[in-house]
Amino acid sequence: MSTSYSLTHVNANGEANMVDVSDKAVTHRVAIASGQVLMQPSTLKMIKDNSHKKGDVLAIARIAGIQAAKKCGDLIPLCHPLMLTKVQIDFEFASDSSGLIIHGLCKLDGKTGVEMEALTAVSVACLTIFDMCKAVDPGMIISNIHVREKQGGKTGHWQRETNDRQG
Amino acid sequence: MSTSYSLTHVNANGEANMVDVSDKAVTHRVAIASGQVLMQPSTLKMIKDNSHKKGDVLAIARIAGIQAAKKCGDLIPLCHPLMLTKVQIDFEFASDSSGLIIHGLCKLDGKTGVEMEALTAVSVACLTIFDMCKAVDPGMIISNIHVREKQGGKTGHWQRETNDRQG
Amino acid sequence: MSTSYSLTHVNANGEANMVDVSDKAVTHRVAIASGQVLMQPSTLKMIKDNSHKKGDVLAIARIAGIQAAKKCGDLIPLCHPLMLTKVQIDFEFASDSSGLIIHGLCKLDGKTGVEMEALTAVSVACLTIFDMCKAVDPGMIISNIHVREKQGGKTGHWQRETNDRQG
Amino acid sequence: MSTSYSLTHVNANGEANMVDVSDKAVTHRVAIASGQVLMQPSTLKMIKDNSHKKGDVLAIARIAGIQAAKKCGDLIPLCHPLMLTKVQIDFEFASDSSGLIIHGLCKLDGKTGVEMEALTAVSVACLTIFDMCKAVDPGMIISNIHVREKQGGKTGHWQRETNDRQG
Amino acid sequence: MSTSYSLTHVNANGEANMVDVSDKAVTHRVAIASGQVLMQPSTLKMIKDNSHKKGDVLAIARIAGIQAAKKCGDLIPLCHPLMLTKVQIDFEFASDSSGLIIHGLCKLDGKTGVEMEALTAVSVACLTIFDMCKAVDPGMIISNIHVREKQGGKTGHWQRETNDRQG
Amino acid sequence: MSTSYSLTHVNANGEANMVDVSDKAVTHRVAIASGQVLMQPSTLKMIKDNSHKKGDVLAIARIAGIQAAKKCGDLIPLCHPLMLTKVQIDFEFASDSSGLIIHGLCKLDGKTGVEMEALTAVSVACLTIFDMCKAVDPGMIISNIHVREKQGGKTGHWQRETNDRQG
Repeated sequence: MSTSYSLTHVNANGEANMVDVSDKAVTHRVAIASGQVLMQPSTLKMIKDNSHKKGDVLAIARIAGIQAAKKCGDLIPLCHPLMLTKVQIDFEFASDSSGLIIHGLCKLDGKTGVEMEALTAVSVACLTIFDMCKAVDPGMIISNIHVREKQGGKTGHWQRETNDRQG
Repeated sequence: MSTSYSLTHVNANGEANMVDVSDKAVTHRVAIASGQVLMQPSTLKMIKDNSHKKGDVLAIARIAGIQAAKKCGDLIPLCHPLMLTKVQIDFEFASDSSGLIIHGLCKLDGKTGVEMEALTAVSVACLTIFDMCKAVDPGMIISNIHVREKQGGKTGHWQRETNDRQG
Repeated sequence: MSTSYSLTHVNANGEANMVDVSDKAVTHRVAIASGQVLMQPSTLKMIKDNSHKKGDVLAIARIAGIQAAKKCGDLIPLCHPLMLTKVQIDFEFASDSSGLIIHGLCKLDGKTGVEMEALTAVSVACLTIFDMCKAVDPGMIISNIHVREKQGGKTGHWQRETNDRQG
Repeated sequence: MSTSYSLTHVNANGEANMVDVSDKAVTHRVAIASGQVLMQPSTLKMIKDNSHKKGDVLAIARIAGIQAAKKCGDLIPLCHPLMLTKVQIDFEFASDSSGLIIHGLCKLDGKTGVEMEALTAVSVACLTIFDMCKAVDPGMIISNIHVREKQGGKTGHWQRETNDRQG
Repeated sequence: MSTSYSLTHVNANGEANMVDVSDKAVTHRVAIASGQVLMQPSTLKMIKDNSHKKGDVLAIARIAGIQAAKKCGDLIPLCHPLMLTKVQIDFEFASDSSGLIIHGLCKLDGKTGVEMEALTAVSVACLTIFDMCKAVDPGMIISNIHVREKQGGKTGHWQRETNDRQG
Repeated sequence: MSTSYSLTHVNANGEANMVDVSDKAVTHRVAIASGQVLMQPSTLKMIKDNSHKKGDVLAIARIAGIQAAKKCGDLIPLCHPLMLTKVQIDFEFASDSSGLIIHGLCKLDGKTGVEMEALTAVSVACLTIFDMCKAVDPGMIISNIHVREKQGGKTGHWQRETNDRQG
């Protein structure tokens, strides 16, 4: 029943604060998030062709995503600052040529989960791709950013169900 | 034909650089972007109820979005630094209760467009909402982030067509 | 006798450096700081009335204070970077209507105290309140920012004496 | 009458946004703010003596204040980003040996005032002095931070009255 | 005669401040800086080979350099914040295989020169190359970082003499 | 043989990612880096004379270097964020009056080495000296930035050989 839940960052008076994780155990944490940029097939082809030569569009989006993961605590007000031990960004061309899929993986030995870091990495990688392609395709859509899987902490292993809602 | 287009941030050798806007005219620029967070109706209700009392979830997401707009040049590698003259974030509850819609508006008198700032504001507002509700609804999806409208610069007024692809 | 003291961040040659905490023990640290913004009763009333409706002035100051605590190592040159486990900002209306009192609490399991983080959180919350009210009350004064209490580390529990100097 | 005022950063719904300054004129702006750190005479003497030799405590506080002025838009959520043309920090030893007085001056040719930048510079300079002296004097108080004078913009020249409230 | 010069950032009392550029004219500014990373021929070959395939080492160093140019005012205490209109990073393999040469170009319409931005871009690009290759060549040396040429402002066009000191 | 080496930040596909240090042991790490700014003897004399009075040029460069060490993970894309326990910057006047030598020392108990932090501290200290003296000596050269010594981690103690290449 939903009354047993509560918005964790809002205290009894409805005021926001950074929740206390002092007494949480340090465990190994992993989170994987994904998202995609829907674009015209011709735009996708330009990225592909460029990646065959110099790879810069994807290389830049990858770097932007990695750096954003490290800035998560600065961007999301109530996120705890974290010392990430691993950030990885991978790209996949959608099989139906509708766009580019971005995956972000973050690892940490710490007291809080790292899904926000993975989501932030994916979001900023998507924005960077948008920025580099907007001159040729201003109608792109950043879509379907979600957590795929997370490990560690009290909830243990969590995996998104396949037939979940689609963004 | 696609050969008339080019990825503007990549030079003749496929190498990325911050494009030269020195000779562009300073014009008044406006951009509006939107996005949404798909969530369970019970999560949406919690945000609504909280907003009726203290409004903190939306207030925090609004602040996070505004601050992110100002950090756009730091997050997106090839974006020019800009002096925004206005940032506004608005929220709308989806009529079908599927989630929360976020609108971001940025203004500037400058040499480059501000759609990346508006998109960044919307993305980080979405991430902040995700962060604050993830304990009750880890399966949320950030979706349909796009530019709705932009004004100013050489291309003048651009508006997204209504029946465009859906994210 | 004062000759037994020394300014800890200045070395034998009077040169500043970030002191070595490598060999300090990791202990649980807490610090509480307070400060206030003196303002006209009518300004205070506006904040109160707004807080009864949407709470935005205080909500924004709270967020600004929390984010500032995380940036302390970036703002104060010789502060060590820290991984805070908790930040909380509370507001109190002065009983004599002279202004708004801000309390900031920071927690950490680490090698250095967190009073600078708590003081920075309070200072930036005060500045944010000033910013939002300066159009109606440009003569506000930020005052009496001090450490109330700290725990952890070699000095153990320290508490400010009640009849201490008043700022 | 107070009903003629309004909190400028809060819109008709009580929601905060960065106000639109697009149509404001670019004028030359100056703001001077002051504040002080109340400390024990022996602490003040240590700073004085150190300043006679290497001057590091004040030099570091000066740098911290200057850098903080440049970060004001990042620290105060609804501040516009600005391109400061001048930042100056000056120190004065209180005539009654009660502490150190800090003055901050900021200049800009722009659309918004620079008092928040001057106040932020002073606040962070105070925090830096606190940080460097806290080992010998944990009971210091940061006090009386206020705007002394501002020029430029629609309100023209504004100066604090001498017998104003004391913080 | 050297007595006619002065260290511009230090005032009459030897105190540092951000110099006042309010009354300087806005002119078009360009600065080009260069530097190099001396490395073993085998390390250089690895970068070359990688660049023939995916180009990531140089792509990452390029992005790091561009982003650092935008952060110059945050890194160098007395630098004015600037709105760069162009940043470009180019790489050259030293003809004697002793290492990699990095060139950085910055442009601005503003009141202050941009050589610090160009030098910062080159320095951070060098550091990034060091970071990526240090596992195979820990003895690399970053060397000969200098301004090659600058235009704009009161001094007009300045060019480094060819037979100048070598770093 | 060089085929046994690999660029650690580039994966099998030549793509860059932040390497996984989750399974590395936490050890005590120290790194010392050095660099120098070659300048005219008259410029060096001005710094010396100023340092005899107020010491500001070196004090500012020291602070800039310390703060830059803390920002290393933000500047160098694939660096892990670190919690430094000690940063120290020292200056030495070259015995042949050719310029100023800067030494940077960083310490950490962690999973990754700190040589990039030490190199970044030295680089930004050099840039700050350049900034403050460029009005009198625009032809300065930043040179010979290298790691002198490092301890901790799997490679243990590493020291640069004396007769190594000179930058």
